[in-house]
Amino acid sequence: MKKPFLITLIAIPLLFAAAARAQVPADRADLLKKMDARAQHFADVSHQIWEFAEVGYKEVRSSELLKSELRAAGFQIQEKVADIPTAFFASWGQGKPVIGILGEFDALPGLSQEAIPQQKARVAGAPGHGCGHNLFGSASDFAAISVKEYLAEKKIPGTIRFYGTPAEEGGGGKIYMARAGVFNDCDIVLTWHPADANRANVGSNLANITAKFRFYGKPAHAAASPDKGRSALDAVMLMGNAVEFMREHVPQETRIHYIITNGGASPNTVPDFAEIYCYARYPSMPVLDGIWARIVKCAQAGALATETRMEMELINSAYNVLPNGVLATMFDHNLRLLGGVHYTPEEQAFAEALSKTLQPGDGLKLGSQEKIQEISHDVSYASSDVGDVSWIVPTAEMNTATWVPGTAAHSWQSAATSGMSIGQKGMTLAAKVLAMTALDLFTDPKQVQAAKADFDKRRAGNEYKSRVPADQKPPLNYRDKP
Amino acid sequence: MKKPFLITLIAIPLLFAAAARAQVPADRADLLKKMDARAQHFADVSHQIWEFAEVGYKEVRSSELLKSELRAAGFQIQEKVADIPTAFFASWGQGKPVIGILGEFDALPGLSQEAIPQQKARVAGAPGHGCGHNLFGSASDFAAISVKEYLAEKKIPGTIRFYGTPAEEGGGGKIYMARAGVFNDCDIVLTWHPADANRANVGSNLANITAKFRFYGKPAHAAASPDKGRSALDAVMLMGNAVEFMREHVPQETRIHYIITNGGASPNTVPDFAEIYCYARYPSMPVLDGIWARIVKCAQAGALATETRMEMELINSAYNVLPNGVLATMFDHNLRLLGGVHYTPEEQAFAEALSKTLQPGDGLKLGSQEKIQEISHDVSYASSDVGDVSWIVPTAEMNTATWVPGTAAHSWQSAATSGMSIGQKGMTLAAKVLAMTALDLFTDPKQVQAAKADFDKRRAGNEYKSRVPADQKPPLNYRDKP
Amino acid sequence: MKKPFLITLIAIPLLFAAAARAQVPADRADLLKKMDARAQHFADVSHQIWEFAEVGYKEVRSSELLKSELRAAGFQIQEKVADIPTAFFASWGQGKPVIGILGEFDALPGLSQEAIPQQKARVAGAPGHGCGHNLFGSASDFAAISVKEYLAEKKIPGTIRFYGTPAEEGGGGKIYMARAGVFNDCDIVLTWHPADANRANVGSNLANITAKFRFYGKPAHAAASPDKGRSALDAVMLMGNAVEFMREHVPQETRIHYIITNGGASPNTVPDFAEIYCYARYPSMPVLDGIWARIVKCAQAGALATETRMEMELINSAYNVLPNGVLATMFDHNLRLLGGVHYTPEEQAFAEALSKTLQPGDGLKLGSQEKIQEISHDVSYASSDVGDVSWIVPTAEMNTATWVPGTAAHSWQSAATSGMSIGQKGMTLAAKVLAMTALDLFTDPKQVQAAKADFDKRRAGNEYKSRVPADQKPPLNYRDKP
Amino acid sequence: MKKPFLITLIAIPLLFAAAARAQVPADRADLLKKMDARAQHFADVSHQIWEFAEVGYKEVRSSELLKSELRAAGFQIQEKVADIPTAFFASWGQGKPVIGILGEFDALPGLSQEAIPQQKARVAGAPGHGCGHNLFGSASDFAAISVKEYLAEKKIPGTIRFYGTPAEEGGGGKIYMARAGVFNDCDIVLTWHPADANRANVGSNLANITAKFRFYGKPAHAAASPDKGRSALDAVMLMGNAVEFMREHVPQETRIHYIITNGGASPNTVPDFAEIYCYARYPSMPVLDGIWARIVKCAQAGALATETRMEMELINSAYNVLPNGVLATMFDHNLRLLGGVHYTPEEQAFAEALSKTLQPGDGLKLGSQEKIQEISHDVSYASSDVGDVSWIVPTAEMNTATWVPGTAAHSWQSAATSGMSIGQKGMTLAAKVLAMTALDLFTDPKQVQAAKADFDKRRAGNEYKSRVPADQKPPLNYRDKP
Repeated sequence: MKKPFLITLIAIPLLFAAAARAQVPADRADLLKKMDARAQHFADVSHQIWEFAEVGYKEVRSSELLKSELRAAGFQIQEKVADIPTAFFASWGQGKPVIGILGEFDALPGLSQEAIPQQKARVAGAPGHGCGHNLFGSASDFAAISVKEYLAEKKIPGTIRFYGTPAEEGGGGKIYMARAGVFNDCDIVLTWHPADANRANVGSNLANITAKFRFYGKPAHAAASPDKGRSALDAVMLMGNAVEFMREHVPQETRIHYIITNGGASPNTVPDFAEIYCYARYPSMPVLDGIWARIVKCAQAGALATETRMEMELINSAYNVLPNGVLATMFDHNLRLLGGVHYTPEEQAFAEALSKTLQPGDGLKLGSQEKIQEISHDVSYASSDVGDVSWIVPTAEMNTATWVPGTAAHSWQSAATSGMSIGQKGMTLAAKVLAMTALDLFTDPKQVQAAKADFDKRRAGNEYKSRVPADQKPPLNYRDKP
Repeated sequence: MKKPFLITLIAIPLLFAAAARAQVPADRADLLKKMDARAQHFADVSHQIWEFAEVGYKEVRSSELLKSELRAAGFQIQEKVADIPTAFFASWGQGKPVIGILGEFDALPGLSQEAIPQQKARVAGAPGHGCGHNLFGSASDFAAISVKEYLAEKKIPGTIRFYGTPAEEGGGGKIYMARAGVFNDCDIVLTWHPADANRANVGSNLANITAKFRFYGKPAHAAASPDKGRSALDAVMLMGNAVEFMREHVPQETRIHYIITNGGASPNTVPDFAEIYCYARYPSMPVLDGIWARIVKCAQAGALATETRMEMELINSAYNVLPNGVLATMFDHNLRLLGGVHYTPEEQAFAEALSKTLQPGDGLKLGSQEKIQEISHDVSYASSDVGDVSWIVPTAEMNTATWVPGTAAHSWQSAATSGMSIGQKGMTLAAKVLAMTALDLFTDPKQVQAAKADFDKRRAGNEYKSRVPADQKPPLNYRDKP
Repeated sequence: MKKPFLITLIAIPLLFAAAARAQVPADRADLLKKMDARAQHFADVSHQIWEFAEVGYKEVRSSELLKSELRAAGFQIQEKVADIPTAFFASWGQGKPVIGILGEFDALPGLSQEAIPQQKARVAGAPGHGCGHNLFGSASDFAAISVKEYLAEKKIPGTIRFYGTPAEEGGGGKIYMARAGVFNDCDIVLTWHPADANRANVGSNLANITAKFRFYGKPAHAAASPDKGRSALDAVMLMGNAVEFMREHVPQETRIHYIITNGGASPNTVPDFAEIYCYARYPSMPVLDGIWARIVKCAQAGALATETRMEMELINSAYNVLPNGVLATMFDHNLRLLGGVHYTPEEQAFAEALSKTLQPGDGLKLGSQEKIQEISHDVSYASSDVGDVSWIVPTAEMNTATWVPGTAAHSWQSAATSGMSIGQKGMTLAAKVLAMTALDLFTDPKQVQAAKADFDKRRAGNEYKSRVPADQKPPLNYRDKP
Repeated sequence: MKKPFLITLIAIPLLFAAAARAQVPADRADLLKKMDARAQHFADVSHQIWEFAEVGYKEVRSSELLKSELRAAGFQIQEKVADIPTAFFASWGQGKPVIGILGEFDALPGLSQEAIPQQKARVAGAPGHGCGHNLFGSASDFAAISVKEYLAEKKIPGTIRFYGTPAEEGGGGKIYMARAGVFNDCDIVLTWHPADANRANVGSNLANITAKFRFYGKPAHAAASPDKGRSALDAVMLMGNAVEFMREHVPQETRIHYIITNGGASPNTVPDFAEIYCYARYPSMPVLDGIWARIVKCAQAGALATETRMEMELINSAYNVLPNGVLATMFDHNLRLLGGVHYTPEEQAFAEALSKTLQPGDGLKLGSQEKIQEISHDVSYASSDVGDVSWIVPTAEMNTATWVPGTAAHSWQSAATSGMSIGQKGMTLAAKVLAMTALDLFTDPKQVQAAKADFDKRRAGNEYKSRVPADQKPPLNYRDKP
């Protein structure tokens, strides 16, 4: 997979050179002006979702707010797709191409934070937008509506679609939506993610399967008759042991990690229930399938040796992202046309104060938010349910600097910045890049074809096949305490 | 330890034969009449505590109610002993002998139950009196006050004392009270426990040490940099494994059981905290000390192998009960003088309905509540903080049939019966037996001497030594969720 | 099972008292005189077997020597029974009753020892008779031949039979012979065992199942491609772990112990073969069956979790001994008629020198060899393939003091003494007791009936069922290095 | 470390192009002619060592043969260096530069093989030259002697030295020789290794630390008193478990593998001795040091948790090879000057027959032995005690095609071919390349300086520090059975 990337790498600088000198065409300049006028409105939308801070599959008010904007703009809305109350998509226009934009909006447990450069929870222990999904959904909403207005005004054919995708953080919303087929008629999917830099991506990440393994034993008084009991915790321990012994015998890029979510109720009783929550990851889904099958054997072995019963509930199953070189180049082009994020003196003061709380390291420095980074080819060790979409439709993701350079995802710092003007500026930039790139695709069918060709080549005949069992329902309560 | 029991066994039937023909002396008959008059009042007290249903160390209202009765009767109350808000003792009288009566009053989590013969929680998930400690504390209170009135009226010298001992269920209230020395000046301790039969005991149980082992590691992203993390869960797993390997190499009567109370927070992060809660038991405390030292080594090994840090918090440490043959014989004598529990037709109906919900087995049958069982010599696999008291002062425990025959402790059935007239009848019987036996001791110093001689012989020079570290505070929040 | 023993215990002393005054009848005195005349010859036989020191299933010369004596005495010999080259039985006479006497003759690896009271191997690392089976087989041979001559002379009907049973030490020779049915037509089986005391036994021991679990994986270079390998050692480790977790959940009298007989060939290669050798024991075979089934599940789980293949070879499977009160009483009677073992001054010096090498303890003291101990009711933690015989035929075992009091089996001390006159004196006493008891049975059919009645009562309907799979061959090479 | 390699990669093809057209200078042509004349003699030497097939530290006859050739050629021999009977070095000449050539000669257990293209042991179970060290030592001997004659004839100053280095296969001969300082005055070390291709190397391999961990417990009868025993096998199991849990938390390129070399003597006895043999590898020694320290902690934890005692014996400790770009380029030059290996019809038939027994794969095909491969930059997952030498002196290794293309090391195929003319042809080529390259260095001091500069740059200040404890003796008996 590296070779194509390297070829792209060589080709792109030439484009950059050209891009650097490029000007925004006049009609697009008008679009951007309109978007600037509407920026504060969508900043407010993002701030409301930031305040809602609803966790996966519970994003009722957040998704409603995004839908109301789309509805007002004339989009037709398909609600509760894939049996998920907060999953939806909104379409406008007719015929081909169908260009989709993804929007996420779920918050993270325990990351409640004020919009200030010191760690302070708004509500102690409550969820917060530590991954900036309030910005993510709002920018995509903003972009879809802006594209619609441009298409309408210019009478350009095709369909613009917004996908409201819940529970990215471990709940796998897109995976259930993908299984329901809602991406099948789409030609291109564009997406983005909040970050500490402006950058197009042609890298990948890790495929990921996660499940809860539940063991059911037989209770007994642990002192009076331990021989009468069959311990579900023993099964969990033995499964864990077996997985540890397996580590030597999987490819070294594999990642397997677990926690014990229920380790027995009382020391005085042989535990008749115990639960282990296990993730496995690998850069390729077919290889991961084989590794996962062996983890299931470890769980079965735990049950067999302890005379307990095992049940597995698949929680998540995300493909590694299949990148798209054509779309990444288009993103990069538009990022360079528009340039980075510039702070006001107040924002600069905020950023400097926040920077002092970050771990010093090799990361990006303050000021880099004004620049556009080179296209990234990194294979990230994270996973995302965007992966599944990317094996169905040519898909690309880019980042904008919504966070102070050096900020990590899932931190109080990202939660803080996602709730104030720095995050909102990055969000507006993202909306513009998404809109510009979508319009490039609407107006240049050859780009759509090229993206599809790149998709076919990279996919190399490996059709998407959902790893979620046919009878499995979305884990709508996966964030509830057991 | 068995031989003295067998000798006692042979001696006792002769006493029984005599007892069976004995009559309650006239002055005691008067006492019993007064107690009958006051029985409903203490039934109400027990019912209020049943409704409070407060768990260990949180028994604020329950202990206050018992104290208010004692205060009204003229007892002097020492509050908050051993730094425990709900521990107290109440004394009346002067000089020797000092006869103590123990009272417990803590409820059990999750055993909320209506006073009906079908399983139905009063408040779903709430605590309930599944071990009848509402009756326990109330009967002992009742007995102490009755003894005081008798002593006062007859001007008999000596001190009657009530010990309000919280958190028996795993919290070890008496262990901290014992460490504080509150039993040291006591000559005899009498106690009882709700049960499904009337019986004096000269058996024992298991010494018990319990602790939470907490491991502190180093968090890291489980996919991106697992090599940077040090897993506290790994330490828990290895400690567990080590304990399992130890099982072969301890005396077979040993019991070791544990649960994992914290097995990591998120599969995606190398757990930097994990906790295991471990019990060990054995019929002798010195042997258990040696076993426990090896369990601590297993925990240290878990930390050593994983480069994590271990902290142990001792939760409980109960001696095995040292029985007393003299006191047991006295209890047995008074039980036989007073006879068992007789049901009204309504109580009989309740008992029959409840019996249908019990596992059929070899246990006692309906009707046996009317009888007095033979003195028990069983070594029970349970543990109790009465054990520590029994190695400081000659101590004896008896049971009355507060529960329908066949009922187990810690069941909804025992919770139900502890909240209605059957339980209250058994409780009144217990109060009478305690009072009668205390008065026997106050009026016959030779019995006190004999009980002490038996104590010295059984203890065989093994002085009590609290296993709780000097700097450890009572685990006042041991019932809180981690 | 304890109650009948206690009853017996009370009854027996009365018999002893009578026995102590008893005299050997005249015709038996003649028998004993003849046996004294032949004692040195069988001492020589035993010494030759002591020098052969052949391990289990390899006792070619030892069994041949015993057979040659029997053949010379007119016995008919059935060789190679149960497909075992060194297993045989020898019969003389006709019709009922058929009285069998067992003889063992296998040595123990690594116990080569000179017949001196200091530890010194005859051949370093070679086998030796550390369990005195050289005496065992010789005394039984001696007894059978003496019985035959008596029966022939007196024309007493019935059949005397000697069973040459190889590989008692872990190889289970009698188990395979039992499966072949060679004990089925026997009425009574008498046996003995060398010991440090003279004693009849009515106790039992532990049923025992043993097997080698072999795991087959897939080799791979452990550094270059560990992911391609499937480790048989991992399977062994996981099976071991699973067994350890099981320990808490079996009755406390269970014993499970294992070694790893093959833990991989080279660290640099993922082991494609590994082997674990596991024993399980319990006082009852049906309970042990259930425990064993769970051990097999642990082995299966080890294979399942590691994608290896498991094969189990049952090595041994011995019932707990079913004692016989009638036969034990007869043994005891004859032991007391004959009295213990008396040392010459040289033997006394040997015994004193050897005593100094023994661990001081609570065991029997020098001089006790002259006495007859009370009948033993102990449940020993050892196991023996005599167990299987005892569930088919009424069987009893007694001991004579072939070893210096305080000597343990399987020690160099027992090997030394088994090779000199002290051992040989004990052996002659054993031969006499066996012969006398056999003749008691031949001449008093009521005793045979009583022994059978006791057998039926103790067996309580549990028919013998060999635990060895029908297609399993005797492990003739179980003493070979893997 | 990759960047310099890539630069070299670009530079080298230009040299190749030049080399391809180069001619052997006249005086060297004379040398080569002399070597051809002597080739059969050294083929015979190699065949004798092949027949000796002596394992590590037992190579008495093999080393003596090599020494006798050197002695005859006028070399001064230093015997028994580093307290190793079979380690030596032989020097000729005076002053600088000192150019060393390494020679190995130890065989591998179990690889005895006839010199035929079918698997057939010469002596079943005996050692064999499956890694071709018979050729290795002989070619290096041959080269050193040839260089000496050239230097003597041409009166070129400097010292040629042959290092006879035993026990490369796991015994670490060079590591002990390095600790003894015998490489310290050397300027350059040249070496080679039998292979299935002709190739210079600028790659590396893995640093490796290996040790036996021995645990000492307390024996006890496993059925009668397992609580009295402390199991050394339990300690081994727990150490193994701990190492498995560690795998997640080391860098993914780490390799840890172990076998259990002693898992207890008898199932019936709590094992008082057990042993585990563990390897750890990583591409960098300082990182491996940290990993190894954690493995030692796992071993300590195993002992701590089981109350056993642990002793570690370091067996081997090899640095990763520090390659040298200058020397590799010189080797490549001379390989190309001399060309590959050409088979006779008989050899071709042998090679074809043998090829059929090889796993078909992506490896080199028959015929490739005639070619010179490109310089290899691979990081091999093997380890070698050449690593230590390479951090003391600029060192380079090359390969010649002594084995049929596709043959793996440590196979019967390599053992077979190492004993016949194909192996001997490759060996002569190796001797010529070594001699030519040594002479290049003797005659061009700038090359020595350039090699030293490359060495200093790659070593980057990391001085060699032997990992073998000061008081540790060479494990002269590491090949003996425990």
